Amino acid sequence: MSGTAARGAFITFEGGEGAGKSTQLRLVAARLREMGHAVVATREPGGSPGAEALRELLLFGKHDLSARAEIMTHFAARCDHVDRVIRPAIAAGQIVLCDRFFDSTMAYQGYGRGQGDAGLIGLIASLRGLIDLDPDLTVLFEVGLETGRRRIAARAAANTPAGAAATLDRYERADQEFHARVAQGFQAIAAHEPVRFARVSSESASVESVTARVVEIIETFLKGR
Amino acid sequence: MSGTAARGAFITFEGGEGAGKSTQLRLVAARLREMGHAVVATREPGGSPGAEALRELLLFGKHDLSARAEIMTHFAARCDHVDRVIRPAIAAGQIVLCDRFFDSTMAYQGYGRGQGDAGLIGLIASLRGLIDLDPDLTVLFEVGLETGRRRIAARAAANTPAGAAATLDRYERADQEFHARVAQGFQAIAAHEPVRFARVSSESASVESVTARVVEIIETFLKGR
Repeated sequence: MSGTAARGAFITFEGGEGAGKSTQLRLVAARLREMGHAVVATREPGGSPGAEALRELLLFGKHDLSARAEIMTHFAARCDHVDRVIRPAIAAGQIVLCDRFFDSTMAYQGYGRGQGDAGLIGLIASLRGLIDLDPDLTVLFEVGLETGRRRIAARAAANTPAGAAATLDRYERADQEFHARVAQGFQAIAAHEPVRFARVSSESASVESVTARVVEIIETFLKGR
Repeated sequence: MSGTAARGAFITFEGGEGAGKSTQLRLVAARLREMGHAVVATREPGGSPGAEALRELLLFGKHDLSARAEIMTHFAARCDHVDRVIRPAIAAGQIVLCDRFFDSTMAYQGYGRGQGDAGLIGLIASLRGLIDLDPDLTVLFEVGLETGRRRIAARAAANTPAGAAATLDRYERADQEFHARVAQGFQAIAAHEPVRFARVSSESASVESVTARVVEIIETFLKGR
């Protein structure tokens, strides 16, 4: 185990649908482990048993929650995830890589569903303060809307038996205007916190070159602190 | 419909297990309707379809949430209930009678489970601010711990087929030290907001006399504002 691994770190991967976050998180985690780091790979919504139960309700529940209640439920799940998984791992000196965190709530619920409503943006900012854990580094994966849409459709088709309807979650089913607002939201959030964010385009680069770039960003961050 | 009914009101019933809140809420709602008021009777956790789904998870879920996450899930359910049921009813000039509201979260999660932990008390106070809806009047039903315990046991037995184990929820199953902390919590909360709270003992009074007393308290409040 290298010297840097003894100090924990909290790194989040963010981006819209089809940006390649989840694939990259798997590959980057494997590469960091090969380099001797202790890595915990996790995701939101979910990441702990209680939060996964809330995830089911958020993504596939029969009942739409009000905009404020949806935001608060995301943060309730996040709170369990932070208390049960993320904080203990950081305290144990591990590198936590998390697929989505509060920036996704700001982009999806604040800018996407909420269309930038000041009350919802303020609620999300307040809940972020109550959670009281900011990522040390956030990698934002950016991809054109059309490319993202094609990747989601291809993934859904690959996971669906012939003749059956593809099972997309609540967000994957949303329209392109929604996804355009989400992408603009991520850009605004990253512009507001340039030190925490590293932006990586996954539009035309190969999967391998994106992984190499992200590993380089993380290594630079770990050595620089 | 009387003159006072045109202006909405938000009235909550609070108290520990077996204090008679739910029975009284039903009886008081009926009496107020007879008097010409438009009344919405509701309860927490739950009260709207999305909040009821969260209630199931809170009361009967397989996975314990962290203390902070449990509190935030209660407020997420509350937020949906407020946005979808309570605020629209008040706006329509109705009297909303709600069985439990944020004082229960303070008493059960802050004082009961949290044992008065300052961080949890502060979290609940912050979330109360974010919900941004205080009751106009809160009736606190007080009963001795032993009387409350006996009433719960009797109710569970009455609802359970012979030979089967009684199905108590997460809170009804908790021990007497927990319920003593909850009772002390309610006392502390009521002492802190004496104008909003009316305290009613249901220890030895008849059901009918308690109903009459609560109706009198509500009528006085409606006329006095």
